[in-house]
Amino acid sequence: MRDGYVAAAKGVILSIAPEAVLVDISHGISGQDVMEGAYVLRQAAPFFPAGTIHLVVIDPDVGTQRHAIAFRHKGQTYVGPDNGLFSLLLSGANPEELVRLDLAQFWRSPDPSPTFHGRDIFAAVAAHLASGVSLSTIGSRTAEMRAMYWALPIADRQGLQGWIFHIDAFGNCISNITSSTFERWWNGRPFKCYVGNTIIEKKCTTYADVPAGEELLLFNSGDYLEVALHRGNASQMLDIHKGTSINIVFSDLADQKTT
Amino acid sequence: MRDGYVAAAKGVILSIAPEAVLVDISHGISGQDVMEGAYVLRQAAPFFPAGTIHLVVIDPDVGTQRHAIAFRHKGQTYVGPDNGLFSLLLSGANPEELVRLDLAQFWRSPDPSPTFHGRDIFAAVAAHLASGVSLSTIGSRTAEMRAMYWALPIADRQGLQGWIFHIDAFGNCISNITSSTFERWWNGRPFKCYVGNTIIEKKCTTYADVPAGEELLLFNSGDYLEVALHRGNASQMLDIHKGTSINIVFSDLADQKTT
Amino acid sequence: MRDGYVAAAKGVILSIAPEAVLVDISHGISGQDVMEGAYVLRQAAPFFPAGTIHLVVIDPDVGTQRHAIAFRHKGQTYVGPDNGLFSLLLSGANPEELVRLDLAQFWRSPDPSPTFHGRDIFAAVAAHLASGVSLSTIGSRTAEMRAMYWALPIADRQGLQGWIFHIDAFGNCISNITSSTFERWWNGRPFKCYVGNTIIEKKCTTYADVPAGEELLLFNSGDYLEVALHRGNASQMLDIHKGTSINIVFSDLADQKTT
Repeated sequence: MRDGYVAAAKGVILSIAPEAVLVDISHGISGQDVMEGAYVLRQAAPFFPAGTIHLVVIDPDVGTQRHAIAFRHKGQTYVGPDNGLFSLLLSGANPEELVRLDLAQFWRSPDPSPTFHGRDIFAAVAAHLASGVSLSTIGSRTAEMRAMYWALPIADRQGLQGWIFHIDAFGNCISNITSSTFERWWNGRPFKCYVGNTIIEKKCTTYADVPAGEELLLFNSGDYLEVALHRGNASQMLDIHKGTSINIVFSDLADQKTT
Repeated sequence: MRDGYVAAAKGVILSIAPEAVLVDISHGISGQDVMEGAYVLRQAAPFFPAGTIHLVVIDPDVGTQRHAIAFRHKGQTYVGPDNGLFSLLLSGANPEELVRLDLAQFWRSPDPSPTFHGRDIFAAVAAHLASGVSLSTIGSRTAEMRAMYWALPIADRQGLQGWIFHIDAFGNCISNITSSTFERWWNGRPFKCYVGNTIIEKKCTTYADVPAGEELLLFNSGDYLEVALHRGNASQMLDIHKGTSINIVFSDLADQKTT
Repeated sequence: MRDGYVAAAKGVILSIAPEAVLVDISHGISGQDVMEGAYVLRQAAPFFPAGTIHLVVIDPDVGTQRHAIAFRHKGQTYVGPDNGLFSLLLSGANPEELVRLDLAQFWRSPDPSPTFHGRDIFAAVAAHLASGVSLSTIGSRTAEMRAMYWALPIADRQGLQGWIFHIDAFGNCISNITSSTFERWWNGRPFKCYVGNTIIEKKCTTYADVPAGEELLLFNSGDYLEVALHRGNASQMLDIHKGTSINIVFSDLADQKTT
């Protein structure tokens, strides 16, 4: 954003599709982190109207042989590099229609900058889609798409072991444990959650369920288990970072240990 | 912004009110700081056209019993939590019309995420207002609204004592002393302003009234007394932070002292 | 952005020109850096459609006698302070039509805030232009415009000596050496590039031409020589900062040295 790269891509879009309504999802994905991009996309995209075209460019391998793709999923269209960025959004589903962006007439120029396909290929294609070109016209149909396999938490009756895969702007620490995984093994038993420099024993519904400055666990608006601090920064105070493991031990096991 | 939370709320708005024109005021309010949010809102909102709907969500108590409200003030409509966020904008005035957002049919879902009313209640209500629903339809009329009492500067003939309540992105330090308070007690006398690690004796009109690198006092575009450094960062160089006190001593008192 | 200053300017624009489509180029130019602003503008502006009005306010001398100007260049219109900000965009060309913004009826108020011409003069003028007022009506024609002379690299058959004038958000280090300057002296000879704590001997086409974590040289999407690190932050790892010099020695000279 700061360097005008995003603006250049928006200029390209408005040159092709002057009526397009532009909405920014995020330009703050840290250093080409495809996994973080996948998470943020999954958080935000489902809330947009049918017909939205999502331009998603986290593209560390720009200029290599990785493919450029576009596809339709649940009434929206997605454009970006085929590097696993869409794995979490699709979570195993197949796109309804998938094409490779191999037709240079829909690019900004037949000779795109090798370091900025975002501007010269992806933005131009998204704009042509916005102005009415169909997916089947804009590229060659394909069935292949790269998936990124996210480490799933280890889970059994005794407990869950996951990891923190995102720290949000408030310092909330988001783990890869979904509520369905938790519910499946929990059965309402007491538990201890070991994470960073603390142990948390209670699951809350909202931040204000604990006094200010106190840590808590909750399932966030994206349905992942989140470690937070009411009116504070959990990442800093609890020494939790991207990659930190989170261990939940259900209490009948804990009881055995003390026997 | 970075995490896609803002984008999700925008997606909700455009799903309900596709014609809405979205303009960002700020997504950089530090860590749920209601007072900073109140200041930034007051800085920016009055410059928007009549009919603007302002969606203002600094909401550390999301999920508790704090009320969600909407109101009209000077031809614009405001939507947000009732936590004092609007105190500075209103500065003692009563809203022209005030309602509580207790009608779930105008929310995104009757079962909103307990941690994200911004998306599930406030954004949806703002969008319904944008698409023509009236205030009186969207919630229940009320007269109660929480006010946040800002510490006012202590002021008399001898001087003023205030504090810095905002550091802007340039490092300018904004105090709670308005030009009317200053003018009332000043009477054109020489003064000394003690703030951070410096003493300033002159009030300027613009940054370039002093040489580069030199500190100055001025009343900023929002009419608050500001400590700045021409082409520099006053907060860093003068060791002034949010909460730092600022003392202005008028000089006939200073004269007495030296007698 | 964070402080609501940008939003206030946007509010002014939409009050005058409600149909205007607003696109942000950058609000992250560090501390009033006119040179960085000039670079980012040159990167982004050419990609916008004909008829675009660019509001460009990096204005450290706001409130002094520096002029406010507007001009047309290659089918687009630019509005901002006359402080050299447009030098890189124009790169020696004369604007097609140039005026001084000396007519207060097109300002937000005849008494603009001395510290915020961005809101009170430039935004208002840009909005009037967007709503159809012509350049010749909005100000007084002039021929004078300040140019900022950028240090050009020193170049001859033996090598090139330039400097880094921008670090982008990825940590890529952009030098003032353009591809045409490089090509003119290079002649395909082997070379050594001394920059920061490293020596680079190969020019690449894209980041992924080297293994992850390795440094590289390429001409970026704006045609400047860039020092980058594949999937890493070149500025941090190679100790390269704004102002760092970059020296390229062509190898027949290097050969002579070893003789």
